Amino acid sequence: MTGDASTSTATATATVDRAVDALRRGDPILVHDAADREGEVDVVYPAGAVTPDAVARMRNDAGGLVCVALADAVAVAFDLPYVQDVIDHPAAADHDLGYDERSSFSFTVNHRDTYTGITDEDRALTITELAAAAAAPEETDFAGEFRAPGHVHVLRAAPDLLADRKGHTELAVALADAADLPPAMVVCEMLDDEGGAALSPAAARAYADREGLVYVEGSAVVERLG
Amino acid sequence: MTGDASTSTATATATVDRAVDALRRGDPILVHDAADREGEVDVVYPAGAVTPDAVARMRNDAGGLVCVALADAVAVAFDLPYVQDVIDHPAAADHDLGYDERSSFSFTVNHRDTYTGITDEDRALTITELAAAAAAPEETDFAGEFRAPGHVHVLRAAPDLLADRKGHTELAVALADAADLPPAMVVCEMLDDEGGAALSPAAARAYADREGLVYVEGSAVVERLG
Repeated sequence: MTGDASTSTATATATVDRAVDALRRGDPILVHDAADREGEVDVVYPAGAVTPDAVARMRNDAGGLVCVALADAVAVAFDLPYVQDVIDHPAAADHDLGYDERSSFSFTVNHRDTYTGITDEDRALTITELAAAAAAPEETDFAGEFRAPGHVHVLRAAPDLLADRKGHTELAVALADAADLPPAMVVCEMLDDEGGAALSPAAARAYADREGLVYVEGSAVVERLG
Repeated sequence: MTGDASTSTATATATVDRAVDALRRGDPILVHDAADREGEVDVVYPAGAVTPDAVARMRNDAGGLVCVALADAVAVAFDLPYVQDVIDHPAAADHDLGYDERSSFSFTVNHRDTYTGITDEDRALTITELAAAAAAPEETDFAGEFRAPGHVHVLRAAPDLLADRKGHTELAVALADAADLPPAMVVCEMLDDEGGAALSPAAARAYADREGLVYVEGSAVVERLG
């Protein structure tokens, strides 16, 4: 049993390393958080590598919200709060989520050079400019470059990443750190076209195999990078 | 020429009437705002008729944000502001939109009986419960039923609808009024899978023909209902 466990750990470690390599090349990966959490597989891209075609792929193959996860320090530099903390409305007061203490949502934004903000070109521009901003927060005039509300959801990672929270937001930013990328990562939930639920991990693995993408478990990311 | 113009007006009127009939039956329609505005075609559903399959269709065939447009009076009853007015951040201060004075975004919400909020089942629940709430605002404990932030974007229509603003938000709510439906309408932008832009009106008309849906111009809605 010990032998099996260490083999399994070695495989998990190798998978995380392959995921980091893929992100460094600008490729998307798939990340499953945990069966006892959202139980959700997200497609994850380095924000700096997102093209209009990548946004179209997220729309067509994933189907969730197109979000950019930023490191806490970047969100602090840009004064981007958890929106739950700044909405003065009783709907924001009590969150009773089944899987976590809070959502990671900050504002929605558009880059100011977009038109409606929703097209693949516009969202790709907003996303790549968020990556550039995250790479040099001190040199970025955030409000000069972005408007809120917009069509790309900003997520704010927990300050101590995986030690604080093990959501896709933190998993993606931890992977960016491991890949030496700016801490701006696109995450988008994979949904099932049949039955109305999230795409199952088995179906997501099959998609990853078909598309030549790395699929990684959140528990492996936590073990390797947490 | 006068004859042509009145024939064209009669055709436009008949198209708006067919759109109203379709909505009354619970069917989606397509609405183009105007070439000199967003220049965008949205798929529009009565919120009360949205099923998980309808959400999947919006993801797969339209691709934009899944939003629910509420009448101003409903938004007032639920204390749902324009988010631009309540975000204390310089990114919200100056909006410089190319096509209008303001965006219609209010908060994002989930019904409290959802889990993650993003699946087709969860979004359909949030949307149909928004329709039920809009049908009886005075009997609805909004914060008891919904949490913010969430995964469905609430849009707030201008108080005087088409006299104030001619966006999809107002066009959809005016059509709901004409159909005697609760003023809660789903709108979702149709995007082009090739080229990164909004779906062209011609391509949207072809989709409408293939799918047996009514396609209507915003100008015809304004003329008939404004």
